[in-house]
Amino acid sequence: MAPAKVEDHAERGWIVPVGGAEDKDGNPVILQRFVELSGGARARIAIIPTASMLETTGARYEQIFAGLGAGQARALDYRRRDDAHDPQRLAWLREATGIFLTGGNQLRISTILGGTDVARAIRRANASGIPVGGTSAGAAILSEHMIAFGRSGSTPIAGGVSLAPGFGLTNRVVIDQHFRERDRLGRLLAALAYNPFAVGIGLDEDTAAFIDPNDVLQVVGRGSITILDASRLEHSSMGSAEDGDSICITGIKLHVITDGGSYDLHRRIATPPPSTID
Amino acid sequence: MAPAKVEDHAERGWIVPVGGAEDKDGNPVILQRFVELSGGARARIAIIPTASMLETTGARYEQIFAGLGAGQARALDYRRRDDAHDPQRLAWLREATGIFLTGGNQLRISTILGGTDVARAIRRANASGIPVGGTSAGAAILSEHMIAFGRSGSTPIAGGVSLAPGFGLTNRVVIDQHFRERDRLGRLLAALAYNPFAVGIGLDEDTAAFIDPNDVLQVVGRGSITILDASRLEHSSMGSAEDGDSICITGIKLHVITDGGSYDLHRRIATPPPSTID
Repeated sequence: MAPAKVEDHAERGWIVPVGGAEDKDGNPVILQRFVELSGGARARIAIIPTASMLETTGARYEQIFAGLGAGQARALDYRRRDDAHDPQRLAWLREATGIFLTGGNQLRISTILGGTDVARAIRRANASGIPVGGTSAGAAILSEHMIAFGRSGSTPIAGGVSLAPGFGLTNRVVIDQHFRERDRLGRLLAALAYNPFAVGIGLDEDTAAFIDPNDVLQVVGRGSITILDASRLEHSSMGSAEDGDSICITGIKLHVITDGGSYDLHRRIATPPPSTID
Repeated sequence: MAPAKVEDHAERGWIVPVGGAEDKDGNPVILQRFVELSGGARARIAIIPTASMLETTGARYEQIFAGLGAGQARALDYRRRDDAHDPQRLAWLREATGIFLTGGNQLRISTILGGTDVARAIRRANASGIPVGGTSAGAAILSEHMIAFGRSGSTPIAGGVSLAPGFGLTNRVVIDQHFRERDRLGRLLAALAYNPFAVGIGLDEDTAAFIDPNDVLQVVGRGSITILDASRLEHSSMGSAEDGDSICITGIKLHVITDGGSYDLHRRIATPPPSTID
């Protein structure tokens, strides 16, 4: 990235986790907004399809972003750890004005790219102002503490969620996706029960959290974002529970926020969409 | 009921909604406790199997309660509205020391028994100190505002829940069952979004809320009870949402409480199980 560019962006870049199954044809508001944040006609979007087992995923997003008016969009097809050393792809990545990670399995991203120059480049890009987004597995990987896998169900169970280190663009949130569709409240609560410092973010499909440089999260899309704020947690039994036990957790604040609403991750204040306020 | 007995119980009787699929053989702690509350060896438990389409349901609970040491247990097989006038069954019901409603479809109970002498007898019995419990559909019917049916999913959707009048033993709670197993957070949130005065109670299977005469809810069983307290609701978009819209609802307090824990429905305070406090 050119030094001049870093100076243009004194702040961290946007972080954009998407809940999976985002609209790609009919009304692709999420991907459209990501293209605009990346610079629109002057955008240079790096697509990381590593989570996916499908060889066509990268090319598909190249077409989608081009169709939405991105100046350039290129899939960087990292499939093995060795790929991460390739200087040509690294150079392209370091000059990107937006980085997008596709869906698939987040453990593929973390095992193939964790600790490599690619992961470092993504972190540095975001720290210097470049927006980084991802859908489904690509959303999970963005935070410091990533949900690797877990059981579905509304209520939390000890051992019902497994965390792993993610890319660490932010440690303020723990992200879960396909939230409504795959019944994941229990596993997100279980993740918070370990250590309630983070905010739990449950993303429905076709719904994205656009987290701005000041850590205000804006809701975009068809579904809802469920926010779990454990800062006034009264009790968590996770410390004494055995594998399979139901977890007792009290004093969680819950918000369900729809398109146009927002949540301030610092002040922990929810703002509903203006359209729903009488 | 004998006047002397009414004086023994100056307070309202226990209300015992069960989340469905309660253990009946191995470790039937919920049904055992219900038998004890009803008087144990001196109990006279009326079973209302009206929700069920199975003709064997009533007889099955007769056997279960007898096996757990209940002095008497009798199924009162109300299948049509005409049945509610039968003086023999009404006499038996009015002398019961415990009343239990089985699972099935809560709309069968409300359509067959709503507004009849049977419903009045159940309400009066509870008001005078007799415990009234029910599992699954039999749990839903206990409160004033009953969830009749709705869509599953973690996040609330306008039109995603339909309420109907229940037996009205309490109006402090809205009850949902099979909570974890059928992914019902969204529909319980939608029910609260209509009017947040009540407390939402989501019962996992094999888990019961034993609500004492002072409206302290005690958790008994294998799973959890999810409590949604909307008393500090900040915003609900239900008033302006159209059918199918995702609902924005902010400022809900959420507790997940396990066996041995409790929740005070008046003071809205959760107390975790003593065993989980270090």
